[in-house]
Amino acid sequence: MIIDIHGHYTTTPPQVSEFRQRQIEQFQRDGSVLREPPPVSDDEIRAGIEPNQLARMKERGVDLTVFSPKAVGMDHHQGNEATNVVWARYCNDLVHRVCQLYPRHFAGVGMLPQAAGVPPRQAVFDEMRRCVDELGFVGFNVNPDPTGGRWSDPPLWDKDWWYPLYEQLVALQVPAMIHVSGSCNPHFNAVATHYINGDTTAFVQFLTSDIFRDFPDIKFILPHGGGAAPYHWGRYRGMAQDMGLPTLEEKVLKNVFFDTCVYHQPGIDLLLSVVPSQNVLFASETFGAVNGIDPRTGHHFDHTLRYIEASPAADEPMRQRVYRENALGVYPRLRPICG
Amino acid sequence: MIIDIHGHYTTTPPQVSEFRQRQIEQFQRDGSVLREPPPVSDDEIRAGIEPNQLARMKERGVDLTVFSPKAVGMDHHQGNEATNVVWARYCNDLVHRVCQLYPRHFAGVGMLPQAAGVPPRQAVFDEMRRCVDELGFVGFNVNPDPTGGRWSDPPLWDKDWWYPLYEQLVALQVPAMIHVSGSCNPHFNAVATHYINGDTTAFVQFLTSDIFRDFPDIKFILPHGGGAAPYHWGRYRGMAQDMGLPTLEEKVLKNVFFDTCVYHQPGIDLLLSVVPSQNVLFASETFGAVNGIDPRTGHHFDHTLRYIEASPAADEPMRQRVYRENALGVYPRLRPICG
Repeated sequence: MIIDIHGHYTTTPPQVSEFRQRQIEQFQRDGSVLREPPPVSDDEIRAGIEPNQLARMKERGVDLTVFSPKAVGMDHHQGNEATNVVWARYCNDLVHRVCQLYPRHFAGVGMLPQAAGVPPRQAVFDEMRRCVDELGFVGFNVNPDPTGGRWSDPPLWDKDWWYPLYEQLVALQVPAMIHVSGSCNPHFNAVATHYINGDTTAFVQFLTSDIFRDFPDIKFILPHGGGAAPYHWGRYRGMAQDMGLPTLEEKVLKNVFFDTCVYHQPGIDLLLSVVPSQNVLFASETFGAVNGIDPRTGHHFDHTLRYIEASPAADEPMRQRVYRENALGVYPRLRPICG
Repeated sequence: MIIDIHGHYTTTPPQVSEFRQRQIEQFQRDGSVLREPPPVSDDEIRAGIEPNQLARMKERGVDLTVFSPKAVGMDHHQGNEATNVVWARYCNDLVHRVCQLYPRHFAGVGMLPQAAGVPPRQAVFDEMRRCVDELGFVGFNVNPDPTGGRWSDPPLWDKDWWYPLYEQLVALQVPAMIHVSGSCNPHFNAVATHYINGDTTAFVQFLTSDIFRDFPDIKFILPHGGGAAPYHWGRYRGMAQDMGLPTLEEKVLKNVFFDTCVYHQPGIDLLLSVVPSQNVLFASETFGAVNGIDPRTGHHFDHTLRYIEASPAADEPMRQRVYRENALGVYPRLRPICG
């Protein structure tokens, strides 16, 4: 069994993103909150999923995708908490519908109704509880920069801002993927720059803070192969040592996991050779960042399974951990779904 | 002959950084500009350089270091253009003194008197001309984010803001290393996060803009092994293809070069296997980011020459390009210095 822990619902029918656009326009015009998102039929869901995510999973032999709303569409830097509650519920419900239609192939992960300038509090916690208790979700995406590339709200180690959210994650026994969304900063292309910088930024915030002393059971996933962290593993090992910190293994790797969304063979080889295999979870973010076929290989850039299969840095026990076992460890709520 | 293209004067005597601190305090107090930096004796310069940078170079067999003021000390987000002109002249003069004392071992690269909110104009150009014409400098460090982690001034592709600076670089026949400085944003540890994110950000700005159509002869160096770019080379190749752009080779690699400040063997192996060797320049940033010895190897993390020597991705012609030939191509003003 192969579990892909990083998929997004990027193939919703057009009325979904049109609703968000209208909601934001109305909010910008008069500050009011559009609350009635348009219906989406089961057929529309099937038409988005079957020829795309599901077909690709079957082609590649992926059994289950841990599936969340489109990341760049989370859009926390726009609107306010009230608009974003409506938007998050709508997007999470659509993910839940996918999981209901294909219960053997998709498990849900929720987006949070974060908003720029607003610490995650009751509205966020209510949606978390709804997602876990009512929708059976197994985790959440947490946006470390709901300001959309301005990076003007507090960092992940800020106790007042973030610790109440971490308490909820621990209480609900769910991990969080650290995943930024769109960028309103012209310096940062969302998917090319902001995503990768967000991962690197979170890694260093974890390394240089006491979050895991205070929450020893919390688990975070860094997507996109951990941003720049594995490529600069020696830099971070050396800086930890210079700062008098414990090793990366002790300080970070009990709580932080890396996905395999790295779209070429040398990158996967590096990831698998520097990060312990217990800390690597298979993922492709298929129908995500990169859609094309690599002319050098004749395969999709995002067919990450091929790179892991071909990697001299992996053996079969490692592959089993990366494909399945680690995911079941990090996402305890996946275990009943996977039998 | 081995040329290290990325060294900083991190071992100045204490009155140097104390001056900057006083200058900023006075500026914050009353907006006035402290203009009289304290003297530094030749003996103080020797005491900083000989047991540190120069000793390390001799141990490792590095002949020449391309040497610039301490990067985290450039400090463009503090003060204003007038304070920063004084500070840049002082720091550049100190680098020049090092080059005069050890003319066979150091070639100068200048910092610019950039300031947050101020486009680089005459004050910057005057210092550039002084550095090249009077001090014999061979290049400059350009800070893509003089706001110190706020990223609130325009991106590198903004024609009004940046193109006049690019015209100067081309006219003076000098390359620029893209190098951020300190961070006043609590999200970003300067050396661990902001440096690496700055490199990745610049790479994508180069990829997604027309800078090299407009300046076909300009040359930029991305330090720290190009941030995250080589690790995500497949992502960037794929995104370029999805965007309908030319290949990375055509779009970026005629003008952009990567240094080897990557502090472990797998990172260097990856860099040398994905980036064409014509685009890689040897560097260590010694007495820079990471000072310690790797307990796994018994050698300094930043002894990057060892990794290149040991890399299965390199052969001797490649090493000669990386150690010397590429540097002479990118820095034409190094050629007479190197005989």
